[in-house]
Amino acid sequence: MTRQILSSENPHIKLVASLRQKKHRDETGFFVVEGVRLVQEAITSACQFELAVISEEEAGGLRIQQLIDKFEESGCPVIAAPAVLFRKISDTATPQGILAVLKQRSERLADLSTPEGSSLWVILDAIQDPGNVGTIIRTADAAGAAGVILTEGCADLYAGKTTRATMGSLFHIPVVKSSVGECLSFCKDKALPFYVAGVDAAHSYTDANLKEPCAIVFGNEGSGVGEEFSRFSSMNLKIPIVGRAESLNVASAAAIILFEAARQRGISLSL
Amino acid sequence: MTRQILSSENPHIKLVASLRQKKHRDETGFFVVEGVRLVQEAITSACQFELAVISEEEAGGLRIQQLIDKFEESGCPVIAAPAVLFRKISDTATPQGILAVLKQRSERLADLSTPEGSSLWVILDAIQDPGNVGTIIRTADAAGAAGVILTEGCADLYAGKTTRATMGSLFHIPVVKSSVGECLSFCKDKALPFYVAGVDAAHSYTDANLKEPCAIVFGNEGSGVGEEFSRFSSMNLKIPIVGRAESLNVASAAAIILFEAARQRGISLSL
Repeated sequence: MTRQILSSENPHIKLVASLRQKKHRDETGFFVVEGVRLVQEAITSACQFELAVISEEEAGGLRIQQLIDKFEESGCPVIAAPAVLFRKISDTATPQGILAVLKQRSERLADLSTPEGSSLWVILDAIQDPGNVGTIIRTADAAGAAGVILTEGCADLYAGKTTRATMGSLFHIPVVKSSVGECLSFCKDKALPFYVAGVDAAHSYTDANLKEPCAIVFGNEGSGVGEEFSRFSSMNLKIPIVGRAESLNVASAAAIILFEAARQRGISLSL
Repeated sequence: MTRQILSSENPHIKLVASLRQKKHRDETGFFVVEGVRLVQEAITSACQFELAVISEEEAGGLRIQQLIDKFEESGCPVIAAPAVLFRKISDTATPQGILAVLKQRSERLADLSTPEGSSLWVILDAIQDPGNVGTIIRTADAAGAAGVILTEGCADLYAGKTTRATMGSLFHIPVVKSSVGECLSFCKDKALPFYVAGVDAAHSYTDANLKEPCAIVFGNEGSGVGEEFSRFSSMNLKIPIVGRAESLNVASAAAIILFEAARQRGISLSL
């Protein structure tokens, strides 16, 4: 049964509020997803829920009621908070009235197995903007990638801005954090060639053979991909600029190259 | 000569602060660009400057001093504000210590001429997020587009978030606001076929002939491209999704389709 909470001092409310900070997410191993769609995706993906919070204002809505039913079936506590209190703990400007606390994913790079067929891996090296990290995870999912690997310098996967930008794709494909060294070992162990995307590269991405299993590395917004990756890469790829822009946004660059891989792999067959 | 300003009541300072609001940008016809790079791009593009403001803290830096010299050569007043006051009027979390007030572009859709060769036009229909609008302008520039047309429902071109996301590309190619009706007339008058990007379209973007002159329309984050465009479009294009994502971020979708056009037009020749 849904329990009503009135005070901002309630420990559940305090937990949700604390999880805005990476420090508390790291300590507890929890994170928050917000909004009907993300919560729905998390339920579908059989995530481990700790708690769900709804805004009393929205509790009567059909979609939210369906989600409440699912939480209650699974034994996850659901609490209702007055709209004012909900807005306080919400991380968005226009809250949809539902959020949930769930366990972070525990899979590690070494646990990932290579899927059948021609796998496509995406490595993000120290990408700082949570919107870019989340958007690239969404694009990687759409392009049929086997998984996304985030090096240590990336924006936190579990920050609200990142999870929202994934639009649920963080529940669709493996997304793991790892060190640069582990990434290199992963590619070596799997005999996986990897390509580095960079503005100073010599080859156009359109000239690379992206049909075969491979990983593609995208780097930091300012400084690009780190030296270690570039040194061991099979080929450094550039997106030739036709106009006067100096470079592309990294999430746009990732979309272009990952969908070139999808195109080479016969994307229009998936229509 | 640079004039020192100490008070937040100074009319120059008040002007800059007021331009954070669209209402005041519309009334005055001015907007603000911030940061070394954007200011530099605006100078290179011979924009009409009204005022430049620097933070006293940064006034000694070489790059900023070069910009000050250029403003003074051109007769644009430069004022120096204490760092605390500069941070107050800055629109960014970590200000670089320089901003400028300049005139909005006056060109209109009817003024745009078709460049030689195979022109590529980008129409943004009611795209709401300023980051998406700015990022697509940057991508359109990079892909060699002839210009970008924003319908009335788009995020304001002159908002700080939009101009920053363009990374200067708003100074490189024509960007005009227009109504949907004017857009349709523009395409009709120029016998320009246009393609609508949408999740429910029947054709893959990879199957369209994007070599010939054309316009591509990208729509609102939630509701897609408006009915009027879809009705008159030459072909509705979809980016087939390989994985489980429901859709792509609109700026990612634009990057994929615009660079498919560039690829078909022989992008690797521009290396």
